Amino acid sequence: MHIEYVPSTLVWGVELGGGDKQGSKGERHAICKVITIVGAVVVAVLFYKFYSSFLATPDLPEFDLNVWWGRNTSNGQDTSIRPYRILFSDSMQENLRRKMEAYRRATRVKSLEDDSTYGINYDVLGQIFAHWQFKYKYGSRVKYLNQYNHYITNVQGLDIHFMRIKPKNTENLKVVPLLLIHGWPSSVRDFYGIIPLLTSAKPEYNFVFEVIAPSLPGFAFSQAPVRPGLTTYQMAIVLRNLMERIGHKQFYVHGGDIGHAIGSHIATLFPNQVLGFHSSTPVNPSKLAHLTLMLGAICPKCVANDLVDKIYPYTDKLQFYLEESGYLHLQSTKPDTVGIALQDSPLGLASYIIEKYLLFTDPANKYTHDGGLSAFNVTDLMDNVLIYWSTGSITTSLRLYKESILNYEMEETLSSIPTSVPTWGLRTKYDLIQQPDFILRWKYPNLVRTTNLDVGGHFAAFEKPVEVSSDIFEAVKFFSTMKK
Amino acid sequence: MHIEYVPSTLVWGVELGGGDKQGSKGERHAICKVITIVGAVVVAVLFYKFYSSFLATPDLPEFDLNVWWGRNTSNGQDTSIRPYRILFSDSMQENLRRKMEAYRRATRVKSLEDDSTYGINYDVLGQIFAHWQFKYKYGSRVKYLNQYNHYITNVQGLDIHFMRIKPKNTENLKVVPLLLIHGWPSSVRDFYGIIPLLTSAKPEYNFVFEVIAPSLPGFAFSQAPVRPGLTTYQMAIVLRNLMERIGHKQFYVHGGDIGHAIGSHIATLFPNQVLGFHSSTPVNPSKLAHLTLMLGAICPKCVANDLVDKIYPYTDKLQFYLEESGYLHLQSTKPDTVGIALQDSPLGLASYIIEKYLLFTDPANKYTHDGGLSAFNVTDLMDNVLIYWSTGSITTSLRLYKESILNYEMEETLSSIPTSVPTWGLRTKYDLIQQPDFILRWKYPNLVRTTNLDVGGHFAAFEKPVEVSSDIFEAVKFFSTMKK
Repeated sequence: MHIEYVPSTLVWGVELGGGDKQGSKGERHAICKVITIVGAVVVAVLFYKFYSSFLATPDLPEFDLNVWWGRNTSNGQDTSIRPYRILFSDSMQENLRRKMEAYRRATRVKSLEDDSTYGINYDVLGQIFAHWQFKYKYGSRVKYLNQYNHYITNVQGLDIHFMRIKPKNTENLKVVPLLLIHGWPSSVRDFYGIIPLLTSAKPEYNFVFEVIAPSLPGFAFSQAPVRPGLTTYQMAIVLRNLMERIGHKQFYVHGGDIGHAIGSHIATLFPNQVLGFHSSTPVNPSKLAHLTLMLGAICPKCVANDLVDKIYPYTDKLQFYLEESGYLHLQSTKPDTVGIALQDSPLGLASYIIEKYLLFTDPANKYTHDGGLSAFNVTDLMDNVLIYWSTGSITTSLRLYKESILNYEMEETLSSIPTSVPTWGLRTKYDLIQQPDFILRWKYPNLVRTTNLDVGGHFAAFEKPVEVSSDIFEAVKFFSTMKK
Repeated sequence: MHIEYVPSTLVWGVELGGGDKQGSKGERHAICKVITIVGAVVVAVLFYKFYSSFLATPDLPEFDLNVWWGRNTSNGQDTSIRPYRILFSDSMQENLRRKMEAYRRATRVKSLEDDSTYGINYDVLGQIFAHWQFKYKYGSRVKYLNQYNHYITNVQGLDIHFMRIKPKNTENLKVVPLLLIHGWPSSVRDFYGIIPLLTSAKPEYNFVFEVIAPSLPGFAFSQAPVRPGLTTYQMAIVLRNLMERIGHKQFYVHGGDIGHAIGSHIATLFPNQVLGFHSSTPVNPSKLAHLTLMLGAICPKCVANDLVDKIYPYTDKLQFYLEESGYLHLQSTKPDTVGIALQDSPLGLASYIIEKYLLFTDPANKYTHDGGLSAFNVTDLMDNVLIYWSTGSITTSLRLYKESILNYEMEETLSSIPTSVPTWGLRTKYDLIQQPDFILRWKYPNLVRTTNLDVGGHFAAFEKPVEVSSDIFEAVKFFSTMKK
């Protein structure tokens, strides 16, 4: 009955609209009434559909573990592991010098606000420019970046780069392999501070790590796929195959940002190979998780316990996500277009990348004049920018967001399949998405602990290597006492 | 009662989550039940709030018509109208040559798909590069751009550029002033084709137009504000003051894209000065309009009549908007960051702008190899890119989106205040948002007609000058027969 009522009212709206100006208020009133009724019915139906979709735990889909992402066929694939060295070539440096010289003063546009609310401001850009132009020493930085052993090996048709760092003094110690997975706009550079801490013995622990830190396909020194589809769970397969190539059938995993998503997929697809999963971005990305937190706004304390201030007021958080997700929206839809400017403009690339480090390390940086830059060693940030620049890989890295959207259904399916792998979460003070343990347990029923840090932000391993490495040691100690 | 039930269940969820793995399905089941109930209550409350917010037509707010946007104070403001000529300086050309030479082959990243679904593809970029480098002649183009009379005058502290073109042969004809308002990423270049058609007498009409086409503040040759707040309705005030400066107390208005929004605000704020409003993007942006079309999905034909195929299936349209609005999301939040790359990279700027022309002219272009480029005269598109480039104004143009979001409440208020100005809509075949007349009438009760074109897209005046100019003549003829 109600639904039948709609069309006639709206048609009446059409007829009325033309002539009777006086009636427009009454007309809108009637339409509002209908909207309320129809809306309630629609919402009830949607809720029912929604609700029933949550109950089933899907079966784990079968995946082809040898999808070929490269140009050639797999005939005669070279499975050797080759040493690799990072190079900042003379021609790149010359090209950069030319670009910096061609950079016009007019390119810099005065900021409207004294802070960073419109994005990277005039003075921050000036500091980045000056640092790059006058302080950044290519020679010593490339030496710094080559301090660890770099390798390349072909996995599923792609030359995949990784660093492999073995501990030096292993007397009476068990050496356990640990896969470190970076995110976006990060690179293996995020792990330079944490690697020595993880590969050095600590008196409290009878083990030490051998670290394997790959560049994701399409990022930095790893080749990009020549066809669509290499999304996070496909990257999970590539990295698992890489670990097998290196000789590690079983290993621990640490990840943050997209590295968390990939690590989570490895734990879901290969639960018998992952000895334990440590995440610095512990998130259950399922729809049920988000909806629960949204409805939890009615009683934040009941849902979030000691995380109340980090999750609520929920509308504030939503506004924050909306404001901070423009880059994500663009990259998920037109990565190649914005990529053209970022591949061509060194300062554009630096600003685009560094903005994320500034804002996601502490959201309050947005309201400061220098955007938080002074809290960083700019050279550290520039290393990461140079890694993207020298490899011309920003566009292929952006495409990962597009692949995630194109393969959204499978991502959602995998996020609602629990993994048995023992899991440990590290929440930094300012990380973007925070969830209480009971929600994490829907995805990670063997969540053994979460640590709440009183410092740090989204790029935890980069920013707080001491705290993160301690937490990883603690987690692995715990994991190793659990029987599978 | 229901609401009280929630917290305990969720707390129970927290307690259960730790140990009992078997219980996780039952737990999720219980939570889903609660979510359904709580969700329905929340939605009912929201709908009620929503509903009541639609009924009141707000009073027209009072605005300061002399807000100062410039650096200096208004003391001794120069109110003269000075002639202006467009210049592509030697140093700009030299700088561009250097940038093009520094542009690395490696900058071009092979596309994953043969079409344009990931954004501007490899081959389209190659064509843009080649055209700019080898075919675009700065000298003859700047002559072309200077064919009309350009002027600058200071309005509210900003040097505002405009073209003013008077008809040549006006014997026995009434000359009526017409304000043409461009949008983003357009410029006055959009109107070069339509201007001669509007300023030439037609035998069927006893009037002809004097055209005034300004560059929006912060766009191209018009100065940008030095403080935040110059959003669309403030631009409306600036343009109305510009028209008064020129000597036109009353005038007709045509606009598309953001030019529609600004024109609509002029009609709302100054109904006695606007003789008639012609829009090539006829849209009522109020929440009620969008909600009505969304709910109309239940019976598209009842709501949309002959526009059914252009509005429904609504979920397809929403998906389309989501996919095509990444640039808008980024510009509304961090215009200054993405601006840095676009100010610095000529090819990045060209791709970013031309992508919009290609996709919004015909959405199907996304699925073609050349993105629809062959349907355009590339030189025409490049003129517009050069206007943004030579004036270094892309960042300040992007900021308009940020200002719109920052002043969203007032934009929403103004969109729910009807204007008495006679209005005429032109719907092109492929324009992005299409609304039936009865919804347009909530905002424009004096909507006298809408024309449905069987060709054209979002940039109507640029793409279809013949059709648009005919429609404007027809509209103004009708307007002039109406008594105010």
